[in-house]
Amino acid sequence: MTAVRRRAPADRGPDVTARMVQMSVNANIDDQFVIGVDFGTLSGRALVVRVADGAEVGTAVFDYPHGVIDHVLPATGAELPPDWALQDPNDYREVLRHAVPAALADAGVPADRVIGIGIDFTACTILPTLNDGTPLCELPDLRGEPHAYVKLWKHHAAQAQADRINALAHDRGEPWIRRYGGKISSEWAFAKALQLLEEAPDIFRRTERWIEAADWIVWQLCGRETRNLCTAGYKAIFQDGTYPSSSYLTALHPEFGEIVSKLGQQLSPMGERAGGLTHEAAEWTGLNPGIAVAIANVDAHVTPPAARAIGAGQLVLIMGTSTCHVMNGETLAEVPGMCGVVRGGITPGMWGYEAGQSGVGDIFGWYVEHGVPDEYREGDGGAHARLSALAAEQPVGAHGLIALDWWNGNRSVLVDHELSGVLLGMTLATRPPDIYRALLESTAFGTRMIVEAFTSAGLPVNELVAAGGLISNSFLMQIYADVTRRPLALIGSAQGPALGSAIHAAVAAGAYPNIEAAAAAMGKRSPVVYQPDPERADAYDELYAEYRTLHDYFGRGHNDVLHRLRAIRNRARSAAGLDLVEVAE
Amino acid sequence: MTAVRRRAPADRGPDVTARMVQMSVNANIDDQFVIGVDFGTLSGRALVVRVADGAEVGTAVFDYPHGVIDHVLPATGAELPPDWALQDPNDYREVLRHAVPAALADAGVPADRVIGIGIDFTACTILPTLNDGTPLCELPDLRGEPHAYVKLWKHHAAQAQADRINALAHDRGEPWIRRYGGKISSEWAFAKALQLLEEAPDIFRRTERWIEAADWIVWQLCGRETRNLCTAGYKAIFQDGTYPSSSYLTALHPEFGEIVSKLGQQLSPMGERAGGLTHEAAEWTGLNPGIAVAIANVDAHVTPPAARAIGAGQLVLIMGTSTCHVMNGETLAEVPGMCGVVRGGITPGMWGYEAGQSGVGDIFGWYVEHGVPDEYREGDGGAHARLSALAAEQPVGAHGLIALDWWNGNRSVLVDHELSGVLLGMTLATRPPDIYRALLESTAFGTRMIVEAFTSAGLPVNELVAAGGLISNSFLMQIYADVTRRPLALIGSAQGPALGSAIHAAVAAGAYPNIEAAAAAMGKRSPVVYQPDPERADAYDELYAEYRTLHDYFGRGHNDVLHRLRAIRNRARSAAGLDLVEVAE
Repeated sequence: MTAVRRRAPADRGPDVTARMVQMSVNANIDDQFVIGVDFGTLSGRALVVRVADGAEVGTAVFDYPHGVIDHVLPATGAELPPDWALQDPNDYREVLRHAVPAALADAGVPADRVIGIGIDFTACTILPTLNDGTPLCELPDLRGEPHAYVKLWKHHAAQAQADRINALAHDRGEPWIRRYGGKISSEWAFAKALQLLEEAPDIFRRTERWIEAADWIVWQLCGRETRNLCTAGYKAIFQDGTYPSSSYLTALHPEFGEIVSKLGQQLSPMGERAGGLTHEAAEWTGLNPGIAVAIANVDAHVTPPAARAIGAGQLVLIMGTSTCHVMNGETLAEVPGMCGVVRGGITPGMWGYEAGQSGVGDIFGWYVEHGVPDEYREGDGGAHARLSALAAEQPVGAHGLIALDWWNGNRSVLVDHELSGVLLGMTLATRPPDIYRALLESTAFGTRMIVEAFTSAGLPVNELVAAGGLISNSFLMQIYADVTRRPLALIGSAQGPALGSAIHAAVAAGAYPNIEAAAAAMGKRSPVVYQPDPERADAYDELYAEYRTLHDYFGRGHNDVLHRLRAIRNRARSAAGLDLVEVAE
Repeated sequence: MTAVRRRAPADRGPDVTARMVQMSVNANIDDQFVIGVDFGTLSGRALVVRVADGAEVGTAVFDYPHGVIDHVLPATGAELPPDWALQDPNDYREVLRHAVPAALADAGVPADRVIGIGIDFTACTILPTLNDGTPLCELPDLRGEPHAYVKLWKHHAAQAQADRINALAHDRGEPWIRRYGGKISSEWAFAKALQLLEEAPDIFRRTERWIEAADWIVWQLCGRETRNLCTAGYKAIFQDGTYPSSSYLTALHPEFGEIVSKLGQQLSPMGERAGGLTHEAAEWTGLNPGIAVAIANVDAHVTPPAARAIGAGQLVLIMGTSTCHVMNGETLAEVPGMCGVVRGGITPGMWGYEAGQSGVGDIFGWYVEHGVPDEYREGDGGAHARLSALAAEQPVGAHGLIALDWWNGNRSVLVDHELSGVLLGMTLATRPPDIYRALLESTAFGTRMIVEAFTSAGLPVNELVAAGGLISNSFLMQIYADVTRRPLALIGSAQGPALGSAIHAAVAAGAYPNIEAAAAAMGKRSPVVYQPDPERADAYDELYAEYRTLHDYFGRGHNDVLHRLRAIRNRARSAAGLDLVEVAE
């Protein structure tokens, strides 16, 4: 059956006029709901969403009881080495047990109105399990083994393995390395697996499945192992239908060829139904058994449907502590410095591109916490509001400053995590709002570099759509519009990933024929669109030219001082017995 | 008559052993005192000093009633343009009336034990007077004319004139320009005079004497105009016995040749007697008429005798908001980027070299005031003590940072006031003690650049002696020793300039035959000498190499971004009607 409906005007982006949406399954769609669950770094959030129009009718958050395990393993009290970051997989089940019922209660929606559930997760957040899905850390004899736990995305202790993965890939001319900007991250599936093999070979051998937590929690929901194409592509080097070759893997380590059999062989496209909710999971969640469970997703990549931005050339910026840029394209292009490009990575049939800036909100937070007198923290809205208001009074360029936004390295387009921040132009008259503004601008310049990398590679960027926590800062949004010389649209939801997961759930439940249709009906745009001001944009062009020059000077080897300073720092700290723990991305 | 005495061991530098000092005038030298008066930017300080050994027995400070006149002219309430900085000359007389008697009272020394008075002053701080010494601003019809007042050293409104002075000097190949690092400052006598002529030609014409406040206050003391060789050489381009040629000056402005007749024709060497104290000045000060008044001096250049550092190659660092480096040399060398070299500028018979760093303590103060959370301001000794203590715990290089110390431009060796600060290497783990330490280090690197400029020009630097307010920071002093790989000695007085002026007074009074003898007896060293640590020095060599590379990249035109940012800033602020007042040096 089909139903035709129009969405309310306030819920429509300026580029969308009276779009018609086809419904495919239920006539009583107004009474149907789906649930999206967004598994973050510290907590999981459940969101109850109306299938008809994406209305968010209830939500609840549940903090992981064990949070991030990065100092001491709770089971033994043993200290973890630097750069480790683990989680306990049962915490994810606890989210299902607590957040989902609480969200339902918040919504006042009875369970029999819920037709599906979808989830998204941080990635690459990965764990070793048995063939039946039992996490190795839940085996009594492995409870005290750190390597048996979930390795969170920001577990950074596999850098040595990543370095070797990259060096060997370049030596051998592996074709897939170019799809990842020439570098595999230490955060990803193969680096973490190689660390497991090398540091705990027995646990590696007992690992029957090496599985993203995203896929694992879907397994917990529907009782069936599935693997989503998105994480396989972006995090596990699945390209053109295959993982890296056995000869490549065994050259890294004689046993490492084994890893492929522990990964997913049959990958599921985004928006598919993974299975029906099991009785056990129905008990946890209070939902009805048998409702659709969607294939897993990644938080960033599930956001474009929520922002109604899955068309070719719609670049979505998910702006938080870092920024993730995702965009569908119709063709495959090799864009220098991308995090990855995966066919079907965002929606089936398109090439999903991902780029990123490894420090954005984190840099602003660092500055506010460590770089300003307390007077700037007074007043409504705290330091960010106060500094933004003061900085907004300035004409472009009046602070005389330029920053390179590399406090947490540079993900795109330099793919160099060992770069560090640069700030120049300070005088005795420089004040905190000046520096704060320069930091905001530097991240906008970084985004412009990424946009230009796309367009230079022949991939048109037709629209910028921002999502994430930082979109509430209108001053920052205006800077992005001015610096990029493009209108900047905003998602109409504060819960982009959870809404995106709910959209996937609706597709998996058959309420819509595909993600496009569901996104058109359920995705949301803010009525606000930031327009670039031509005069400010001209002024920023001049500053951006300076940014580019410095970017290339410090970032492309003309003066490798930032690497040398880091090496000197590491040597000095090692010699003094100080640890080298970096603040994580 | 002569007297032979030995100074107490605690009062002797490590390099001086049982030196004998010849006294030339009085046997009862233990009962004789001299007074040094140091005229600063905001106040004047009188210091009563024992002739025999330099003991400081009493002191008093008097704040200028009008302070720095940089916003509104008190006589009219009229606003001053940006960059102006005036003073009222009567404030200097008030120092004589108040600070000198108070210092005498503090010392408990009767006036008839005082045999001389000497002064030092900021420079170039200059005023227009009649032939009898009456300041033009004290003429009733000129009381409301800003141009009739003293122009303080940091009056920066003559930059346009300085630019033309420099351009023409280079065009014509004037030989003197090389003695000033290729640049005459807008602060100096000719730039200020040309501004006077161009902006107030009538007042220029009524100016019979264009005289340093230093010489003017000596005139007030002894009733006779004298001109000291030091300010004439460093601030008024008096070189090889002459001022710039009439043809050069008239090429700047048809009437500008007149300026030479308004300057001093007969210059007095340092340490000479200018005359005897007048009855009027005796009444002001409570001193006896007829006692010796010494030729005027500049605060920086009078400090070496107080630090017992007037031998060839003894480089004195006067470290405060900025640092002034002065050193006697036996030969004339053209050292790139010096502020000036003047024969007899410090002591007769030697070439006095001056270099400088335009921001030192000012940068640290800026950071503490505008760059750190309040928690760092808690505890004894305030933020500087706390940040120094925390920073001192780090091994060299452990912060991973490098700064270019150009927050207030670069005086030596780049002679470029339009440069600005650079800081690089920041990560999310960077904390305020890291940045604070990097700022301290950057000024030490700047000093090493100056030391190397001297030695590369063939002028040996045999000893570093620090004076000024910053010497109380032992962490900073150790950094300077480590970075320069040289022992760093300290002056033994907190009142270096006033003590130096008192030493000059003793020479002028005939208590010693020359400055050398007086300095040996009355100058003071701290028992502390900071020794470089070879390991830290090696580590700093590596950072210094990075500093040099960045210094040349940003400072020598490879990337003129700092100038462009300043130009953009000025344009943006002008367009918005904001003023461009820089924080002054």
